[in-house]
Amino acid sequence: MNVRADSTAATLKIRRDVLSMTMSESLDELKTLLAQVDDLGKAAAVLSWDQQSYMPPGGAPARASQLATLSRLSHEQFTDERVGRLLDDLAYETRDLPYDDDTASLARVVKRDYEKAIRLPSAFVAELAEASGLGTTAWARARSENNWAGFQDHLKRMIELKQREAEYIGYQDRVYDALLDSYEPDMKTSQVAEIFQGVRRELVPLVRAIVENADRVDDAALYRSYDPEGQWALAQQALSAIGYDFERGRMDRAPHPFCTSFSNHDVRVTNRILPNFFNSAFYGALHEGGHALYELGSPDRFERTGLGGGTSLSVHESQSRMWENLVGRSRPFWQYFFPKFRKAFRKNSADMDAEKMYRAVSAVKPSFIRVEADEVTYSLHVMLRFEAENLMLENKLNVSDLPSWWDEAMSSYLGVTPPDVAHGALQDVHWSMGLYGYFPTYSLGTILSAQLFEKARETLADMDEQFARGEFTPLREWLTDNIYRHARKFTLNELAVRITGEPLQTRSYIAYLKQKYTELYGLT
Amino acid sequence: MNVRADSTAATLKIRRDVLSMTMSESLDELKTLLAQVDDLGKAAAVLSWDQQSYMPPGGAPARASQLATLSRLSHEQFTDERVGRLLDDLAYETRDLPYDDDTASLARVVKRDYEKAIRLPSAFVAELAEASGLGTTAWARARSENNWAGFQDHLKRMIELKQREAEYIGYQDRVYDALLDSYEPDMKTSQVAEIFQGVRRELVPLVRAIVENADRVDDAALYRSYDPEGQWALAQQALSAIGYDFERGRMDRAPHPFCTSFSNHDVRVTNRILPNFFNSAFYGALHEGGHALYELGSPDRFERTGLGGGTSLSVHESQSRMWENLVGRSRPFWQYFFPKFRKAFRKNSADMDAEKMYRAVSAVKPSFIRVEADEVTYSLHVMLRFEAENLMLENKLNVSDLPSWWDEAMSSYLGVTPPDVAHGALQDVHWSMGLYGYFPTYSLGTILSAQLFEKARETLADMDEQFARGEFTPLREWLTDNIYRHARKFTLNELAVRITGEPLQTRSYIAYLKQKYTELYGLT
Repeated sequence: MNVRADSTAATLKIRRDVLSMTMSESLDELKTLLAQVDDLGKAAAVLSWDQQSYMPPGGAPARASQLATLSRLSHEQFTDERVGRLLDDLAYETRDLPYDDDTASLARVVKRDYEKAIRLPSAFVAELAEASGLGTTAWARARSENNWAGFQDHLKRMIELKQREAEYIGYQDRVYDALLDSYEPDMKTSQVAEIFQGVRRELVPLVRAIVENADRVDDAALYRSYDPEGQWALAQQALSAIGYDFERGRMDRAPHPFCTSFSNHDVRVTNRILPNFFNSAFYGALHEGGHALYELGSPDRFERTGLGGGTSLSVHESQSRMWENLVGRSRPFWQYFFPKFRKAFRKNSADMDAEKMYRAVSAVKPSFIRVEADEVTYSLHVMLRFEAENLMLENKLNVSDLPSWWDEAMSSYLGVTPPDVAHGALQDVHWSMGLYGYFPTYSLGTILSAQLFEKARETLADMDEQFARGEFTPLREWLTDNIYRHARKFTLNELAVRITGEPLQTRSYIAYLKQKYTELYGLT
Repeated sequence: MNVRADSTAATLKIRRDVLSMTMSESLDELKTLLAQVDDLGKAAAVLSWDQQSYMPPGGAPARASQLATLSRLSHEQFTDERVGRLLDDLAYETRDLPYDDDTASLARVVKRDYEKAIRLPSAFVAELAEASGLGTTAWARARSENNWAGFQDHLKRMIELKQREAEYIGYQDRVYDALLDSYEPDMKTSQVAEIFQGVRRELVPLVRAIVENADRVDDAALYRSYDPEGQWALAQQALSAIGYDFERGRMDRAPHPFCTSFSNHDVRVTNRILPNFFNSAFYGALHEGGHALYELGSPDRFERTGLGGGTSLSVHESQSRMWENLVGRSRPFWQYFFPKFRKAFRKNSADMDAEKMYRAVSAVKPSFIRVEADEVTYSLHVMLRFEAENLMLENKLNVSDLPSWWDEAMSSYLGVTPPDVAHGALQDVHWSMGLYGYFPTYSLGTILSAQLFEKARETLADMDEQFARGEFTPLREWLTDNIYRHARKFTLNELAVRITGEPLQTRSYIAYLKQKYTELYGLT
């Protein structure tokens, strides 16, 4: 609770300013200021969504300027000294309230954001937003043209900007620590490395055993030609099944699937379709749908306060990965959903049944694209990126060398070599947007999802039977009660302890994978 | 040139502030400030476009807040005293430059906007934006449900807000003058009334003569069942034909067709389809496409300065109406375009030819919906609204009485009675958004379009032959050279005089209608 102690100390100096205000007055003023900051952030989210979905190519330069202006203004408004003084005051006023009190949590969480934000100059924030805008557009074009040269300079510039950002924020050990903390507060690079090492130790022999018995699971049916419109409609059905409300969201096409929130009543997902690979659109929808349920579950009273939405990215990812894998790649899910699949693709599915479908979508097969990776090899993709990010940020790898480094790393981690750079170093939008230190949260979230799911299964004793009947409301309500309703109040480990009695651990995740895949592949 | 004299006088008082700055320094600072204001305005345009096209219902309340914040911030930044001082200085510095000099024009035009903007408190601007956001959503729902009660309170509130706006802005004669001036600078309600009276005097006998001979033009073919996807594709072809570049724009579905600009390289149109009425989507596309060509033709050097885009709304409307009617409802256009129509709707068009199509789309038939009205009765719809707006703003008509007033007025102006309120007082989005004083510009623009087209025809001697060959580039280049490239430099009458040697006149418009429709209906 260092932040609390700091702010209490700081408060003593400034209390004269606010001495004549009651707590409710200063809270009202703070909320007015934060609402405006939130509106600007949400406006930027709309512009970014459009940029990645509908915007025609000509719109790119102006859009980058618009996003830069919104980022700079939002940052200026948030880092205004008045906000700091009101936050200090609020921290002082709420010092005796319970830790999870709404107002105490607002003071604590927003103060943490504030302390980080004031380290970045507004002009730098705008520069970053503009580079992100231009980089995203350049990336989309470069990927569609399979042309690394079209993206390389944008990546180089972004790495330089993120190095500067890390210097502004400060760090003790690794440059990466400064960036990671934005997505996963209090997490250190060394901790991630240790967790990843532990997981890798268990995964490598499991993957090896599976690959040796690869022929025991037949996933050929996933690579048939599935009508794009049929895929889209089925993905919508899957979203509806898990409780995604199309009156409060929508799914649009984009080169990269993502979820974005414009309020807790307008949370959208994007998706893409591969005509010859079933998993892409279907599991893209379930994954982004998992994120969306979390955002949609954020309470109305936190809207426009800075406390709304999901907490850290790992916790967010625990939700997307849970619906994608622990639910969507389960046997009972396919017992329920197979008839819908069968109906959508009459001609392609006559030889399939629920069990075959469950086995096919669970097949483990080292491949090129992270977002389409199976449950077992997924974390290896993430580890590779974690390594690449660290190397680039520490100037140990030139961006011009990334494609060849990538191919070698893929070969070493996964035993496969991408056919081209679009399936290699160019496959993913994150780096073009300036999201470094973000990838580890995909694996941390996956690990957390198993820990949470184990607890949910204890509580909802007949969860499998519920899934087999298409009843996902009990799980969603459990998640609402344990996670969604707290919005940003707690950190990953605070939540993990509240729910499961212990901080993030890898035991449940490893146990889940071993149990499922030992059975699936008949391993001994 | 009152504005120039005012600002010169004001400049004398403040020159000390900027004495040490060169003109290029103060111009740079002004442009930086204006770029930010423009970015905020464009961001709001993106949010508004989404609100009217893709936004799910749940998003409405938050969107209204976001738009309110963007409007308030944009207004605050624009009305900052620093902007005023820099504008005064620039007006002084450019006093000896030609009237059409870029910098002199920037000083003059932006100063005019500034003088108006500073009269409105930022809080009021935000209030208006929020009411507009909520009103638009309420209108869309009310219209789809054919339910006046769902919109009435929003309309009432909006009228009150606009009355307050008029008080802030000030006016001498009519409350309407204050609002009209925002869309058509320097135009007065009394002038509009006089122009409308003159046009009506000529139109009424023409409409009467046409209605008596209505059977001479057969438009039944327009009311066949046209496949929505085929209509959409044909509308896109029409846009491409007139030179709309889909790399710098797009067409999306919305309940009401509109054009919106996010930069001069990203100008979008929206459209709707009626499965049983050909004109709706097709002429919606040509109309909005005309607006879009104007915005796309705005020079790059005016981007983010406040001088970019189209000048007054009437001039804007002269462009949309020109492409919709003077081009799109001409005999040579259909000589070129008929084979495309024939190909798109094989089954429905076997009995048609270019001449029959030209006659059908030109048919005059008093109807309910303004945007689908024919060329001759169109202005009568506008006159009705002009009257309704004035009555409501002067508290001579209660909003609860509008639907019945509307039906009676339709009967008196056009001899038809709408079947329901969705086809009556609820048909149109403008009032829900706070656009009052806007409707007259539709007719003023239509009148101007004929005046400009007459001049274009003189210059491009074989325009009809060009159209018949599908060559619309010469007209577009003429418009670029005479109108688009000036962006906001000149007012309606300044432009009219520059191009045609005289201010706005109704002679060309009346002559065009009389000539075309006397021939079409075989009148004597």
